Amino acid sequence: MAAAAYKLILLRHGESEWNAKNLFTGWVDVNLNDKGEKEAVRGGELLKDAGLLPDVLHTSVLRRAIRTSQLALEAADRLWIPVKRSWRLNERHYGALQGKDKAQTLAEFGEEQFMLWRRSYDTPPPPLADGTEFSQSDDPRYAVLPPELRPRTECLKDVVHRMLPYWYDGIVPDLLAGRTVLVAAHGNSLRALVKHLDNVSDADIAGLNIPTGIPLAYDLDADFHPITPGGTYLDPDAAAASIEAVKNQGKK
Amino acid sequence: MAAAAYKLILLRHGESEWNAKNLFTGWVDVNLNDKGEKEAVRGGELLKDAGLLPDVLHTSVLRRAIRTSQLALEAADRLWIPVKRSWRLNERHYGALQGKDKAQTLAEFGEEQFMLWRRSYDTPPPPLADGTEFSQSDDPRYAVLPPELRPRTECLKDVVHRMLPYWYDGIVPDLLAGRTVLVAAHGNSLRALVKHLDNVSDADIAGLNIPTGIPLAYDLDADFHPITPGGTYLDPDAAAASIEAVKNQGKK
Repeated sequence: MAAAAYKLILLRHGESEWNAKNLFTGWVDVNLNDKGEKEAVRGGELLKDAGLLPDVLHTSVLRRAIRTSQLALEAADRLWIPVKRSWRLNERHYGALQGKDKAQTLAEFGEEQFMLWRRSYDTPPPPLADGTEFSQSDDPRYAVLPPELRPRTECLKDVVHRMLPYWYDGIVPDLLAGRTVLVAAHGNSLRALVKHLDNVSDADIAGLNIPTGIPLAYDLDADFHPITPGGTYLDPDAAAASIEAVKNQGKK
Repeated sequence: MAAAAYKLILLRHGESEWNAKNLFTGWVDVNLNDKGEKEAVRGGELLKDAGLLPDVLHTSVLRRAIRTSQLALEAADRLWIPVKRSWRLNERHYGALQGKDKAQTLAEFGEEQFMLWRRSYDTPPPPLADGTEFSQSDDPRYAVLPPELRPRTECLKDVVHRMLPYWYDGIVPDLLAGRTVLVAAHGNSLRALVKHLDNVSDADIAGLNIPTGIPLAYDLDADFHPITPGGTYLDPDAAAASIEAVKNQGKK
């Protein structure tokens, strides 16, 4: 077995106000709800109990991931570590579905179209027009991005393509410096990263869900390949239960 | 009048568990109390109401400043901005006084010695021995500092000397890039910065107190000199009342 060279921890944000309401969120900047805050604290406690203490934090620019990282690091007594953020770690942009009810969308478009938008690797939802209610076209945090870089909709393939430059240029250098890296991000940006790390096929990634609030630890070898494929959840039982729950989203 | 070239905002953390208990804190990493959390949120609301929105945040590595910045930026809807931290923005290291009751210290050593330790520019308290209860000698956040750089006690003059390199190398480049900079830090690290900006004499700095939780905004000219000496508090009445209260610390 290869020796572990690098330590990477992935943390999906806890439940948000819109997760609970069963709405497509994407780049809409909703907050954690009470349950999500508790999940984040528990995530930090799991890190502390495992003695797996991050040296540096990477987050998206969305508050549900940022606040999850803050609550988790406070619980792990690591608030003081350096922080880096990138829009490249954002959730998938859900296009015209942003703000829509998942169950209603399922009823309106049928299960086939619904599952295509949710789970196909390369079929994005219709684009979201700039200047509309759930668009981020006027959000100052994206003002640094030229228009051609700013998504109006994304499929998971798009997320992989815009996330990977940050993996190589933002995260890998911290791993190379010997730092334990925590990435606090989203269901789909983390699926994109796991797809890359574990070399998951375009077909198989559809069935891979990442639970909220449970740190997923990867020991990587010198070539950044996982020593244990799929990594290790710090609370495997809770992870298994949560993965089931995610699968049933949109079916309530 | 010179044209404003740069925008700088200073924010002293809200009340901590030890402020409320009237203990010397220094580098001991105590948390905000409820009042301090409310002050931090109010600080962020003042920024938002004034339309004075930071583009980048600099904090110490102490949680009372970090959490103040998090709560303030959440209230100002700016959680997503880049964050940089440095021990050089830490509170003054209070040496052997760390963890001691202020009123008890006053009674034990008398007002002259007490005021010398608290307010003289160049007389530090006795050093705090490594490995003792309120020392940070084993704290992982300072593991990167060689022993000769790690304070065992500090006077304000020491704080000026260790803070200024961060002003020049960490903060000024962000101002030069046109960013509105928020510095979330401590009574004495901010006094050190204000002493430098406003060219306050070694004698006069003793009488200068910075209130907690009220943003202090500086417009700086091209030479980084304040356009309005002393800057502008976003809530001047609350600032004046708070400055009075700080003056009476240790006298309860």
